[in-house]
Amino acid sequence: MTKQELLNQIKTKKSFLSVGLDSDIEKIPAHLKNAEDPLFEFNKAIIDATAEYCVSYKINTAFYECLGSKGWKSLEKTVDYISKEHFIIADAKRGDIGNTSSLYARAFFNHLNVDAITVAPYMGKDSIEPFLAFKNKWVILLALTSNAGAMDFQFLQLEHSKKKLFEKVISKSKEWGTEENLMYVVGATQANMLTEIRQIIPDHFLLIPGVGAQGGSLEEVVKYGMNSTCGLLVNSSRSIIYASSGNDFAEKAEEEAMAMQKQMENLLKSQQLI
Amino acid sequence: MTKQELLNQIKTKKSFLSVGLDSDIEKIPAHLKNAEDPLFEFNKAIIDATAEYCVSYKINTAFYECLGSKGWKSLEKTVDYISKEHFIIADAKRGDIGNTSSLYARAFFNHLNVDAITVAPYMGKDSIEPFLAFKNKWVILLALTSNAGAMDFQFLQLEHSKKKLFEKVISKSKEWGTEENLMYVVGATQANMLTEIRQIIPDHFLLIPGVGAQGGSLEEVVKYGMNSTCGLLVNSSRSIIYASSGNDFAEKAEEEAMAMQKQMENLLKSQQLI
Repeated sequence: MTKQELLNQIKTKKSFLSVGLDSDIEKIPAHLKNAEDPLFEFNKAIIDATAEYCVSYKINTAFYECLGSKGWKSLEKTVDYISKEHFIIADAKRGDIGNTSSLYARAFFNHLNVDAITVAPYMGKDSIEPFLAFKNKWVILLALTSNAGAMDFQFLQLEHSKKKLFEKVISKSKEWGTEENLMYVVGATQANMLTEIRQIIPDHFLLIPGVGAQGGSLEEVVKYGMNSTCGLLVNSSRSIIYASSGNDFAEKAEEEAMAMQKQMENLLKSQQLI
Repeated sequence: MTKQELLNQIKTKKSFLSVGLDSDIEKIPAHLKNAEDPLFEFNKAIIDATAEYCVSYKINTAFYECLGSKGWKSLEKTVDYISKEHFIIADAKRGDIGNTSSLYARAFFNHLNVDAITVAPYMGKDSIEPFLAFKNKWVILLALTSNAGAMDFQFLQLEHSKKKLFEKVISKSKEWGTEENLMYVVGATQANMLTEIRQIIPDHFLLIPGVGAQGGSLEEVVKYGMNSTCGLLVNSSRSIIYASSGNDFAEKAEEEAMAMQKQMENLLKSQQLI
């Protein structure tokens, strides 16, 4: 998907919501557990219920890998089921030396055929470039994450440049891609850092996880992170997909997604973007 | 596998060789490509040919993931096929927020049942701890990698501590685990840094990739990186598994692995470790 197509989807749906398919075999409703492929049945119902209100699905690969090849089958079926109007993110946090990253790129962009993959920056340029070589596919690079461990290394102050590590990761890596193939992960719990980040990358899309169960605020994210074309994908996982653990899980997920979409519509209007 | 069991294997086999199963569907001998599971057939032959000369197998997950669920099946069969005397490393470079890392730990330590997984440090403590919670399983944390991109962030000089980022990653993370469950990746192309690294972690095992096709020298690695109990696993992938692309690929792999083992035996003797 191109940047323009993604922006068109945001305008059409009046939403910049990404629904996170963190589908945990231990948390899905009991009545689905006897299905032949419980994760896929759960995802299908969640996708049917939320497709109208979101522009993206983010699939956290760990939830599928913990079931091995069977889980990867559910992952493949889920990606196939999502309409091509949605921007599909494999939240896989991969990254390796060049020739290995090329294989991960093949895995996610050719075999699975998702639009974007999250990538960890530690191994530098040649670990990221193979992903950027795919046309109309995206790298979403970890910049500042939403977890407590973000404090351990990402905030380290560097000598000479006086930057923090995450700022250096952003300023260096933006030379490797463009606004058409490179986004950044910035946790919603780090909304106070968005002003600094927008000074380095005013125009890139940001993927913001951590709104909802992890405690981030949508208003703050928009206030400090939205740019002149929107430039945000805000992800919610648990607060939508586990809104209910009963037979009504899909209806409750729909209600949650619709409520998020309404909130986003108001925010887009307040920024005169729709 | 415990540290003592690994050391026993090293003494018994007179080897600290890890064979990297970077098994590429596009590079394996033509006569195997029509097999029902070509990657597994290739691995089986390589394992049979090299098991006597190595103490470890390192499986690079990218080579399997690029075939999707089918590749994961080959990965599962390969792990099952390797004898429990060998230390099995999933070179997967995972790492995510705590609850997601727990699922990756389940994927690799419960479902696949490997001994160790490589993990990227960028997301900090809570991204690594869930792996360390598994008894007799290991985290192998990326410290200093063998690729050109290692220069981009790993060598950044930090303010205050005057350390480089990779040194900080090592000194901080060693508080999270022990010599019994935490190793570090240090590329063989970075042998000149091993003296500094051994000052921070004299007793931890190091996994050293990059000897062979990537140009690292085994003598230098041993000179600067070996400790009083050995403390090294040196990995070779391409130079062993693709020693020949013909029908004799397994014999040639055996010859290469045997040559590496002999070299290692001499080095272990020269250090009076056997």
